[in-house]
This record gives sequence, structure tokens and C-alpha cells, in this order.
Amino acid sequence: MEQKKKELLVLEDILGSNKKIAGEIKKKLEKHGILAVNLLSAPGSGKTSLLEKIGLKLKDNYRLGVIEGDIETERDADRIRKIGLPAWQITTHGACHLEARMLAKIFDQIPADLNFLFIENVGNLVCPASFDLGEGLRSVLLSVPEGDDKPKKYPEAFLTSQVLVLTKCDLLPYLPFDTDRVIKEALEINPHLKVFKTSATTGEGLDELCAFLEEELKQRLSQHA
Amino acid sequence: MEQKKKELLVLEDILGSNKKIAGEIKKKLEKHGILAVNLLSAPGSGKTSLLEKIGLKLKDNYRLGVIEGDIETERDADRIRKIGLPAWQITTHGACHLEARMLAKIFDQIPADLNFLFIENVGNLVCPASFDLGEGLRSVLLSVPEGDDKPKKYPEAFLTSQVLVLTKCDLLPYLPFDTDRVIKEALEINPHLKVFKTSATTGEGLDELCAFLEEELKQRLSQHA
Repeated sequence: MEQKKKELLVLEDILGSNKKIAGEIKKKLEKHGILAVNLLSAPGSGKTSLLEKIGLKLKDNYRLGVIEGDIETERDADRIRKIGLPAWQITTHGACHLEARMLAKIFDQIPADLNFLFIENVGNLVCPASFDLGEGLRSVLLSVPEGDDKPKKYPEAFLTSQVLVLTKCDLLPYLPFDTDRVIKEALEINPHLKVFKTSATTGEGLDELCAFLEEELKQRLSQHA
Repeated sequence: MEQKKKELLVLEDILGSNKKIAGEIKKKLEKHGILAVNLLSAPGSGKTSLLEKIGLKLKDNYRLGVIEGDIETERDADRIRKIGLPAWQITTHGACHLEARMLAKIFDQIPADLNFLFIENVGNLVCPASFDLGEGLRSVLLSVPEGDDKPKKYPEAFLTSQVLVLTKCDLLPYLPFDTDRVIKEALEINPHLKVFKTSATTGEGLDELCAFLEEELKQRLSQHA
């Protein structure tokens, strides 16, 4: 019991300190008119592929940047740089999620004139959901091969996101995945979720997702103008 | 810095206490001749589907049981019970991995005459790798749709496992996945990994995996006889 109590106190400390730093980041982002989008998902759900595709669609009209969170390697940042976007790698060396203090450390490197700052979190459908990074939008990705039973098994990520992106929808013909079931279940957890069905391979749903992001940016700029 | 130090001390406490309890579980399992297999993977890699299929293959000749670790819901345990196997659900309510103390709590319910005790960990390729559950074998699953770049991005699970099970290999025709690359990379992290290419849909590789498990059980029984 004594240990459990100690653990809970330290966890409270961590989350409290994270919230404070996230609040400071949020203020800076709003001041500069940057819409930061935090992407959460299991490993291999297609976060980097989605960013490559929407990056190519948005980059002619907007200034974009990507923060890549990974336990090890710079593989994802390298993929983003290949399509001509700036990427900042945060390698956590074991930690299973990004925390606001990790972003704060590299924040000086982020140009103040960005429009969109995408933050690809560590591949983990659990822990990243507990850590606010000061983002303007949180998006959870669920890929068709992961199965349609996931929202209620991993509710926190769905509860704290504003956007649900179903990915790899081109694989629907080959897999038992009930799209209606998964959307219904996700909306039971969080009725405010905006849902997009996408495929980075066929391009399905990407125009709709980009249009939504552009509209969100516009609205926020007018709010903070 | 003070907080970081406190966090590290608590983490050491947690891991130390986990190691002690895992050691006790390991002794009990060996005494009863039970081979416990801890299954680690990302959400939706096919842990439950694999267990359903190898459960059906092994259940006529062995006594089996399954511990299901999930953040929420008893969905996986229900699937296992449907094929006639006993299943014990551990619902962690937020915790992203199983710990030895969670198993210790339900250990009295596990029949002492089991041959195989499968432990399906929480769907998370990161944190479960740090927690020994007293298992005799640790197995990491990687599904083809997750992509062939995962071992070096999530090295701990591959480093601490004895078995790598590639799952959903029936999807290889539809996805860019270099099997040789992923095996080479996994073996660079851990040259002792025994690798199986499987599909719960077509049955590929399941006989080989079951034969391996039977042989492991036989060897351990002769060692502890």
C-alpha cells in the first residue's frame, strides 16, 4: 500500500507539472497562430504515411512542420524530410509517450510563422492519451487491420480526442471490420468525435481531412485575431 | 531535476518489487510443470486470434488456460471461453501493462495441473516489455500491416523475448512488407529469437509454432523432473 501511495503521488506530480508546461506551450502556439495537431495511435497505424500524404496536399498553401516522437531511431523524421518538410525528432529512449517538457526543450527551433505543427506521438494507444502537449487538436488513428473492437478496450485516447481517423480503409475488402460498429462505439465514448475514413494508399478521405484542418485553422485565427 | 530523481526512485521500487513477485510466480509454475507464455504486441496484432487457433490445436492433448490482460472490457476472455478454454480476465482500468502483483492476486484460481498458461498482455509494444511476469517464455507478435520498420523502433520487446511471431502473413500480397528485412533487423537486436511466420486466417505456421511449444514444455519438464 505504501508503495502504491508513493506511485500515485509521483504520478500526480508528473501530470501536474506536464499540465503547467502544456499550458505555456498552448499560449505560445495561439499567440503565433499555429494549429498544433497531436496524433495518437498504436504502432503501425499509419501516422507517418498519413502525414506524408496530407503534408504534400497542404504544403503549397501553408507553412508546415512536424515533430516526430519515437522511442528509438530517426526513421519517421527522415521520411517527413524527404517530402520537403521540416521535422524535429524527439527520441525518448524508452519512454512510451511524449511529455510537454520534451516539446518545451525544442520549442525554440520551431519557426513562429508555421500554420500547422503536426506532432506524431510515440506509437502507443495507451499512455500518450494522459499527456496534454498544448495541442489545439488531438487526433486518434485506428487502422482497419487492428480490428473493430478497439475503442472500448482503449477508451482514453478516444475520449480525449476531437478527431478519429480510420486509416488503411483500402484493406476493408480483405478484413472483417465493421466500420459502422467502430464509429458507433467511438461515438458512445465521445459523441463529439469528428470521423474520417481514409487510405494513404488510394487517397480516400484525405481531401475531406485537409479541408477540415484548413477550416479549423481559419476559425482559430479569427478567434485569436 | 528533483522530480526526475523522485520518478526514477519510484520506478526502481516498482521494478524491484515486480521482480521479487515474478520470481515467486516462476517458482510455483516450475514446481507444477506449467509453461507460462507471455504474449506481447501492439493493439490489434492478433494475440487473441492466435490463442484461439493454437488453443484449438493443443487442447485435446494438453490442459490449457489463458490470462487476459486488458485496460477495459472482458471481450478477449469471452472469445477464449467460447472455444472451451478457461480464461481469467485482469482488467487494469488504465494501466498500460500487466505486473506480477496482478497475476499473484488471481494465482489461486489457476489449476495446478495446467500444461500451458498463456498470458495475453495489454496491447502495447512498449511498457509490458519492462515487467517480468515469471513466465517461462516471452513471445512478441508483429503483424504484417504494422510495417517492417518496427523492431528497431521498439527494441525492448524484441530484446527480451525468446520468440517472434509474425502474424497476418495472409495479408503479404496486399502490403509492402519485407519479411527478410524485419527478421534480419529483429535478429540484430536479439540473435536468439526463434521466428515463426503465421496467419490465423489460413493456418500458416501454426503447426510449427505448436510443435515448438510442445517441445519446450517437454524439455522443461525433463529439466525440473
